[in-house]
Amino acid sequence: MQTPELRRRFASSPVAYLSTVRPDGGPHVVPMVFALVDDTVYSAVDAKPKRSRGLQRLANVRANPRCALLVDHYDDDWRRLWWVRADGRGLVVDEPSAAHPGIQALVQRFPQYRDDAPSGPLLVITVERWSGWASTA
Amino acid sequence: MQTPELRRRFASSPVAYLSTVRPDGGPHVVPMVFALVDDTVYSAVDAKPKRSRGLQRLANVRANPRCALLVDHYDDDWRRLWWVRADGRGLVVDEPSAAHPGIQALVQRFPQYRDDAPSGPLLVITVERWSGWASTA
Repeated sequence: MQTPELRRRFASSPVAYLSTVRPDGGPHVVPMVFALVDDTVYSAVDAKPKRSRGLQRLANVRANPRCALLVDHYDDDWRRLWWVRADGRGLVVDEPSAAHPGIQALVQRFPQYRDDAPSGPLLVITVERWSGWASTA
Repeated sequence: MQTPELRRRFASSPVAYLSTVRPDGGPHVVPMVFALVDDTVYSAVDAKPKRSRGLQRLANVRANPRCALLVDHYDDDWRRLWWVRADGRGLVVDEPSAAHPGIQALVQRFPQYRDDAPSGPLLVITVERWSGWASTA
């Protein structure tokens, strides 16, 4: 698959799996809803109930900006499997304004955010490499 | 959620997202089909077409055994979201016999493997910690 097709498939999913590295060197992975604008992925710590906004994912990115994001398509028919991975670097915007392009993109994409826009922190990941796999069976 | 419920939800999914750390310290994530037996997760490099069996995930686990596995339930109704994560340590069995309990568990779980059992390498991950999140909205 070429980059435009990888980007298109990635953007078709509401959820991606964010893999980062913990400060102690171990792997960490969480799901996140996101919006893709060109080669930038935005995701917010939002009103979905969490224990706190001091999330592990944010601590990880602050300490090591490298991020790997996965979008997966599973099917019991294994001839239809595919996945796309975006590798890049993230940064945390602690207090984005409502006009931040990332907040705007998330609100535009998700009706769930319309009445309760995320206030942040906002995770901004610049994709440096697209890769993927599709069954050719 | 208590551990039995976390384990039950994890086992309900055919696919998990495996996060590992690359030898250069960056994060890596791929989907994998798996079978869970007690606190052991088995996954095989199988006949689904890959460029090679010398996969990045195996190189990562050989260099750093720490693994994080995610099972996710997404729903447009965000009151129904949940995910489960299993943190543990992996090892690679390069040439498992057909009688290996991991191969047996995979073949038993997936009809897709019945005519073409995976020959390995086999990834064996011992779960040391279950965690998870469910929307309570």
